[in-house]
Amino acid sequence: MLTAGIDLGGTGIKTGIVTEAGEIIAKVACPTAPERGPEIVARDMAQTVLDALAQAGKTQDELASIGIGVPGIEDPSRGIVPFLTNLGWHETPLRALIQRHIDKPVYIANDATAACVAEAVAGVTVGTRSSVLVTLGTGVGGGVLIDGKPFVGAHGVATEIGHITIKFDGEPCSCGHLGCFERYASATALIREGKKAAAAHPEGQIARAMAENRGELTAKMVIDAAKIGDPAAVELFDRYTTWLAIGLAVLVNAYDPEVIALGGGVSAAGDFLLNPVRQKLPNHIFFRTMPYARIELATLGNDAGIIGAAMLRG
Amino acid sequence: MLTAGIDLGGTGIKTGIVTEAGEIIAKVACPTAPERGPEIVARDMAQTVLDALAQAGKTQDELASIGIGVPGIEDPSRGIVPFLTNLGWHETPLRALIQRHIDKPVYIANDATAACVAEAVAGVTVGTRSSVLVTLGTGVGGGVLIDGKPFVGAHGVATEIGHITIKFDGEPCSCGHLGCFERYASATALIREGKKAAAAHPEGQIARAMAENRGELTAKMVIDAAKIGDPAAVELFDRYTTWLAIGLAVLVNAYDPEVIALGGGVSAAGDFLLNPVRQKLPNHIFFRTMPYARIELATLGNDAGIIGAAMLRG
Repeated sequence: MLTAGIDLGGTGIKTGIVTEAGEIIAKVACPTAPERGPEIVARDMAQTVLDALAQAGKTQDELASIGIGVPGIEDPSRGIVPFLTNLGWHETPLRALIQRHIDKPVYIANDATAACVAEAVAGVTVGTRSSVLVTLGTGVGGGVLIDGKPFVGAHGVATEIGHITIKFDGEPCSCGHLGCFERYASATALIREGKKAAAAHPEGQIARAMAENRGELTAKMVIDAAKIGDPAAVELFDRYTTWLAIGLAVLVNAYDPEVIALGGGVSAAGDFLLNPVRQKLPNHIFFRTMPYARIELATLGNDAGIIGAAMLRG
Repeated sequence: MLTAGIDLGGTGIKTGIVTEAGEIIAKVACPTAPERGPEIVARDMAQTVLDALAQAGKTQDELASIGIGVPGIEDPSRGIVPFLTNLGWHETPLRALIQRHIDKPVYIANDATAACVAEAVAGVTVGTRSSVLVTLGTGVGGGVLIDGKPFVGAHGVATEIGHITIKFDGEPCSCGHLGCFERYASATALIREGKKAAAAHPEGQIARAMAENRGELTAKMVIDAAKIGDPAAVELFDRYTTWLAIGLAVLVNAYDPEVIALGGGVSAAGDFLLNPVRQKLPNHIFFRTMPYARIELATLGNDAGIIGAAMLRG
C-alpha cells in the first residue's frame, strides 16, 4: 500500500506519495500562509495529497493513510495539536480538519520525530532499532526511536531535546528558561557567537564576510570562516562542537541509542562538524570504555519530513 | 512461582524470596566484604538464596530465577558486569559465578533500575507503564521503565541520570566531568553546601549541629536546620530543591514518564522535599500547559532492591 506524507512548515507544505520502502513517487508543494487559519490550510493540505496521487497515477483506494509531521506535538489524549507556534495556531484539531476532505486514517507527529523515522526507513539509521535524530537548525529538534518505534512519552512531551538544560545559569532561551541545549547547538548559537567574534575582531574573516553581506550573518558564513582557518572562527567553532558533544553525551546517558544522527542546516558542514564531535564525545560520556552510540550525519535532507510522516502508523 | 532477589551493595548482601505480587516471604543478609573477591562473594550470595529458601520452607524446584541488583551495569553483549566501583571489581562474570552454585536463570540489573521495577510492582508507581526512579543518596541514581519494562538502552548504558550535565562549567564530579546532576541533587551536595553555610555563618544552626556532632555533617542535619527555619539552611535548601527541579525537568523533557519517584536518603525529608519540588517543576519544563509527570516519594525503602531484583526477567 501507499501512504501520503505531509511536512507542514511555517512557510511551506510539502507532500509526497510514498512506498512502503520509503520511496517518494510523487511530490507536491504549496505555501502554508498560516494566517489564513487551520481550516483553509488543512483544505490545501488535503488537496496536495489528491494532487500528488493524481501525479503518481494512483487513486484514493490505493492510499492507506496520511501522516503529518508538524513543528509541534500532538496531545495524544485529545487528538489536538495544542501549539504550532511557528504558524500562530493553538488547539488545532488537525486530524479532523484533514478528514473532512479525505476519509483516511491521519497520524500526526513532531517533525523531528518523523525525520527520525525516515532516517531509520531509508536513511543513515537503516537497520537500527534505536536512534536519535538531532536537528541543528534555527532551534534544536529531536526525534527518538526505541524498539523501532517513535518514542513520545506518556503525555506526548518526551524528546524535547532542544530544551534540555545543559547550563542552568546559562544563555536565556526563547522558552523562558536558561541554558537550554539549543542555545548552544543551534545555527542561532553559531550566529550569536559569530556576531560577538565579529565585534571583537573587526579585522577578522567573520566581520569581513558580514560586511560583504549587508551586515547579515549566517551560520554557514561562520563555519566557512572556520574552514579557512580564521582564528576567532576556529576558536568559536571549537567551542560550538564542545557544546554539541556535551549535549550529545546527555542523550547517550539518557537514551543510549545505537546511532545519533545529526541533521538540520548546520549538519551541511559535513565532516568538518562530524570529526570534532566524534572526537570530543568520549570526553563527556560516563561509561567511556563501554560501547556507545555512533554519531552520523543524517542523509535524507529535506525529504526526511515527507518520508517519515508517510511512515507514521497508529 | 517464586523468585530470589539479591541486592548487592558495597557493604552488605540482602537477599529475599519474593512472590509474583512482590511480597518478600523470607529475607537473609550478610556482609559483602568485597575484598575477598567475586568468587567467594558469589558463593555467599548463592548461599543466602539457599538459606532464604530454607527459611521460607521452600525448595529450589519452587524457584524460577535469581535476580541481582548491582551498583553498576551489566554489559548485555558479554554477560559481564564491567564495573562495580564500590566493590573494587572489574569485568565480573557474576551470572556464571552464581550459576556454579545454583542452576537457575540469573538476571542482573542496575540497583536503581531494580528499585524502579519494585516501585511499579509493589510501590508508588503501581498501575503505571512508564516511570522514573531517582535515588537521592551519596550520588544520584536512576531507573526508567518504558512500556512497563526496564529501559537500559542499546548498550546497557542508558538512564545514567546522575551524570547528566546540568551545568557544563559547574561543580567537578567524581566521574571526571563538570556539572553533573548528582553534584547538585545528592546528599553529598547538601553536605557540601551545608559546610559552606556553616563556615559563612558560624552562629547558625548548621555550624551548631556540626559542633555537637564532632564536626561531622550529614544531609539530615542540613535538612533539619532548614526545617526549624535557620536562614542559611532555608536558603541552601531552597537552592537545592531548585536544582533538583531543574534536573527533574530534564527527565520530563527526555522521558516524559507518568510518574517520577524520589527515593534514597534525601527523600526521607518527605513533604518538606516534595512540596517545593512539585511547586518549582512547572517553572522548568518546556510544555507548561500539557500534562506532565507526577512527582511522588518512593515507598518501598530498603526492600526495593530485593523486590525489584526478584522481578527481573530475561
